[in-house]
Amino acid sequence: MAVYTEVPDDDLAAFVAEYDIGRVLSCKGIAEGVENSNYLLQTENGNFILTLYERRVDESDLPYFLGLMAHLADKGLPCPTPTLGRDGRALRRLCGRPAAIVTFLPGVWHRRVGSDDTGQLGTALADMHVKGMDFPLQRPNSLSVESWRPLFAQSRERAHEVLPDLAEELEAELDHLEAAWPTCARLQLPTGNIHADLFPDNVFFLGERLSGLIDFYFACTDFLCYDLGVCLNAWCFEPDTSFNITKARLMFAGYRGVRELARDEMEVMPLMARGSAMRFLLTRLYDWLHRPEGAMVTPKDPLEYVRKLRFHQRVGSAAAYGLD
Amino acid sequence: MAVYTEVPDDDLAAFVAEYDIGRVLSCKGIAEGVENSNYLLQTENGNFILTLYERRVDESDLPYFLGLMAHLADKGLPCPTPTLGRDGRALRRLCGRPAAIVTFLPGVWHRRVGSDDTGQLGTALADMHVKGMDFPLQRPNSLSVESWRPLFAQSRERAHEVLPDLAEELEAELDHLEAAWPTCARLQLPTGNIHADLFPDNVFFLGERLSGLIDFYFACTDFLCYDLGVCLNAWCFEPDTSFNITKARLMFAGYRGVRELARDEMEVMPLMARGSAMRFLLTRLYDWLHRPEGAMVTPKDPLEYVRKLRFHQRVGSAAAYGLD
Repeated sequence: MAVYTEVPDDDLAAFVAEYDIGRVLSCKGIAEGVENSNYLLQTENGNFILTLYERRVDESDLPYFLGLMAHLADKGLPCPTPTLGRDGRALRRLCGRPAAIVTFLPGVWHRRVGSDDTGQLGTALADMHVKGMDFPLQRPNSLSVESWRPLFAQSRERAHEVLPDLAEELEAELDHLEAAWPTCARLQLPTGNIHADLFPDNVFFLGERLSGLIDFYFACTDFLCYDLGVCLNAWCFEPDTSFNITKARLMFAGYRGVRELARDEMEVMPLMARGSAMRFLLTRLYDWLHRPEGAMVTPKDPLEYVRKLRFHQRVGSAAAYGLD
Repeated sequence: MAVYTEVPDDDLAAFVAEYDIGRVLSCKGIAEGVENSNYLLQTENGNFILTLYERRVDESDLPYFLGLMAHLADKGLPCPTPTLGRDGRALRRLCGRPAAIVTFLPGVWHRRVGSDDTGQLGTALADMHVKGMDFPLQRPNSLSVESWRPLFAQSRERAHEVLPDLAEELEAELDHLEAAWPTCARLQLPTGNIHADLFPDNVFFLGERLSGLIDFYFACTDFLCYDLGVCLNAWCFEPDTSFNITKARLMFAGYRGVRELARDEMEVMPLMARGSAMRFLLTRLYDWLHRPEGAMVTPKDPLEYVRKLRFHQRVGSAAAYGLD
């Protein structure tokens, strides 16, 4: 949760006047998205999300993010789409920050993931992958294997504060990942535009029906099956970190109903799961060790991902995920 | 800004099912209200505010707050009104906290107060006072003169961290206020239900037109003119703490267009202004000295109210406020 930038009402009125969406009726900072300032904006024309991009987002990436959302929404994926101003532009500035207005997506995210949810998740993820195939821009994954060791270096000295010997454990895992990852390139795994952060809070439901995907601000160009690794970690473990193979089976079945997985994509699934576990472990570890004293936002526990990583290390083949 | 309680989606669905407002379409924590958890709730029937009352609110006061809002809205004051469940009750429990759904009020608050704003503010405040006259419940002002010295005692030892000699200055002012306040009772000043916290962020405008008053969670039964003292402090000083007599004149004119002020109410205005300055100074001082280290919410600066208090101490009569 975070609202970083306070928008004066007259600046807001002038900003909204650049669009054909009527007058502002209400604008409330919402406790969603950790990276940016988000407002639920109501105008005479309906509901929108106003986002001010804060310092952690690289401004040069915004055309990719906004373009991908527009491309996917245009093809019928239920996701926010940028609203264009009268000048045809989606991106402008507000309070000194880059800012955009996107359409509002109804739905709530499921705090407790149901077994039925993961099937729909898999279907929607494959749908996104297929619809994103012909999107012309590219953005390398800045949180993939090359970034992990430098990121780890910023937490290494203090990793023992989280767990004794954690530094050594991660060092060994990085050695493994760095040796194994190039295999994927050699295998010429299908690549495309992936979400890369499709956690439950980024998937909306209306009742029991999946109604949309949000938050494309980690989207990038990478192996499509890496997204499944992320979702395995984010959706298929129970709160006690036990693995729920039923949820995983349903997720893969939902995915393969839309896009078939190649044999190689299945075979690298344990590696994808380990790699994505490492990625979230490292950012959580960093945020945990660098949290401001007494901050009101509690960083997510990195230990959850240590446990998930250890699970994947013991997995011999994709069959352990119900994928065969 | 604060969202304290996280509401699971299934608990929310069960809660909303107690009302005749359709299914939940969306529910987002909003960064408004420091005391409670507030959500912008969208259902098939429209927009609402869902509030979970956190520990700083005394549960036994809730029937007064909700009853007053219902009473005022029923009489046509633009303010939120509690939505009743099928059982006829406005107040129930969610996630272990008392909770209510109130109607959504469109509008944005003015970050920069315009001169035209204060006239409308005065009119709306008088309207609230008149419409609240026959509300049958009462709630003594728990932040009036009797509470100020005990509140001060909790900050006294460390007041010098804010300003050298602040403790002595406030001590002398408390002596004055405690001696002068009983005069008001002897004068039999008109009392009634007051807002007691009508700062700019609690007053909404649509364009230039005042559209509503919100946040009645400090409302209480006290001298009506005390509310004008609060508004003098909250609306009639510029950001550099210079007093804007034009804004004050317009506020009083707007007020008196709806409800005439008695001679005594005008004469005690400097005392009301000093008293309300002390009330906000003391709570801000407390919050400032007791803020958690590194907290993301910056407490409001108590020095602003030291400067306002000193201004009022030099005021000889209500004429200095443009009130005559």
